[in-house]
Amino acid sequence: MSMVIVGSLAFDTIETPRDRRERIVGGSCTYAALAASLFTQPAIVAAVGQDFPEEMIAFFKEKGVDVDGIQVEAGKTFHWEGRYGKDPNQRTTIKTELNVFQDFKPRLLPAYRKADIVFLGNIDPDLQVDILNQVESPRLVAMDSMNLWIQTKPEALHEVMRRVDVFFANDEEVKMLAGENNLITAGRTLLDKGLSLVVIKKGEHGALLMTKDFMFGLPAFPSERVFDPTGAGDSFGGAFLGYLDKVDSFEESDIRKAAAIGTVAASFVIEDFGMEPFRFLSEHEMEKRLSFFKKFVSF
Amino acid sequence: MSMVIVGSLAFDTIETPRDRRERIVGGSCTYAALAASLFTQPAIVAAVGQDFPEEMIAFFKEKGVDVDGIQVEAGKTFHWEGRYGKDPNQRTTIKTELNVFQDFKPRLLPAYRKADIVFLGNIDPDLQVDILNQVESPRLVAMDSMNLWIQTKPEALHEVMRRVDVFFANDEEVKMLAGENNLITAGRTLLDKGLSLVVIKKGEHGALLMTKDFMFGLPAFPSERVFDPTGAGDSFGGAFLGYLDKVDSFEESDIRKAAAIGTVAASFVIEDFGMEPFRFLSEHEMEKRLSFFKKFVSF
Repeated sequence: MSMVIVGSLAFDTIETPRDRRERIVGGSCTYAALAASLFTQPAIVAAVGQDFPEEMIAFFKEKGVDVDGIQVEAGKTFHWEGRYGKDPNQRTTIKTELNVFQDFKPRLLPAYRKADIVFLGNIDPDLQVDILNQVESPRLVAMDSMNLWIQTKPEALHEVMRRVDVFFANDEEVKMLAGENNLITAGRTLLDKGLSLVVIKKGEHGALLMTKDFMFGLPAFPSERVFDPTGAGDSFGGAFLGYLDKVDSFEESDIRKAAAIGTVAASFVIEDFGMEPFRFLSEHEMEKRLSFFKKFVSF
Repeated sequence: MSMVIVGSLAFDTIETPRDRRERIVGGSCTYAALAASLFTQPAIVAAVGQDFPEEMIAFFKEKGVDVDGIQVEAGKTFHWEGRYGKDPNQRTTIKTELNVFQDFKPRLLPAYRKADIVFLGNIDPDLQVDILNQVESPRLVAMDSMNLWIQTKPEALHEVMRRVDVFFANDEEVKMLAGENNLITAGRTLLDKGLSLVVIKKGEHGALLMTKDFMFGLPAFPSERVFDPTGAGDSFGGAFLGYLDKVDSFEESDIRKAAAIGTVAASFVIEDFGMEPFRFLSEHEMEKRLSFFKKFVSF
């Protein structure tokens, strides 16, 4: 099959209690694409400024990522700065400089319009609609979002939700969108609105998948080395969809396995700053950890 | 084998956003014993006042619980009053009347001193030490605790921890005791102090078991009807140990299954006020839900 990922390419400045990194490459597209590239050859649609490093483009290519859809615009690349507390779930955004992202108009190359899987990363829902209007007949469309869009653009967000199959969100977002405190009831409410699959990412508490036919629950991977949680959710989504693209199936058993693979991919990403872990991550290491994880949840 | 549970028998006044119950029977012993009675015939050691209902004693007997160790003292039964918020994990204690519990000196009947499994429910660690001094050579001793004792009686608590095999606690308590923010590292720290098994109860986020040989993670049961979370943790512990008592084994596979059974028992308890769910809970219903749960976590 084929897979297109739309989202952000960014510079991230990240501070953790142990260390700090200035302007390292990040963004939802970076994580999702590198995680997906463990299984397939995803294409990226995103905007960067003239300051985006050639070395990173070369690294994407080396990993089999199709970079033809990256739009280089006059100006600077999107920059996010954030700080993590002692509890890595506590994240404070210090600064957001949209830069070229401000006027980003995603244009899908003709080849991308025929993609089988489309992953709409966490960007303005108006842009997500724009992309949906450009694709032809994808077999599966997944979207990510965040509380910002739930609060500021609920109508556009709901339009996207009506037109996609898979919705990634964290537990708070699912409850907020459904106006319901019980997570399971909230998930069902979203399914009733037409989604096929709701993937609830709970960070250090694992993930919950809900469809009308089955539910699947996973604890988080038991990580002792939580260094920088940036990109964990995007890596989960990228690996999840990349695996489905590879096996060319949306069967229940494959969806379950894809979620376990997403969890394992995320467990690697948090072990070092930014996308560093992808430099050395092999399919063999993924498989080893997946087999540990399978044992971890078995009874 | 044989199993003794030491803890509280109490009246609970419980308020949830939906409803309120005055002075219904509760206490760690009640939940642990009724959950254990699904699998074995546990004996209770606890103090009640003269106001404790005969009907409840009869119900314990009907469920095969040995009530000979209940000490009826002059005065009133322990009374706890609490309120749950919209988020059932938010619990506020409104009132605690210790009553006969204030001067409780647990006396183990001669037969109980030979118990194979001893469950020290969440009570003053000085009392837990007192009980440890009365038992002969149990094959497994488990303890529960709470942040109150960690803060007020750390030395007594650490003495109990040195003398038991299994430690039940929630994630915050494990981190607090270990002085460590990462849950896995915190659990390892406690294992290094001599515990054989740390059972970390995470409420709506499931459970994590740690030994020096293996780790086992479980998401919570996906409950849509969370009515009254009181007793969920005690029921988990009671069912966990009751199952081990029944199968007469502490093998890894049995410990894993026991934790799944504990999760399922807790999932029933939260569906109605207090111990009501135990009135109708059968082994068959437990098995049905256990088999759903096994599927829920499989990939």
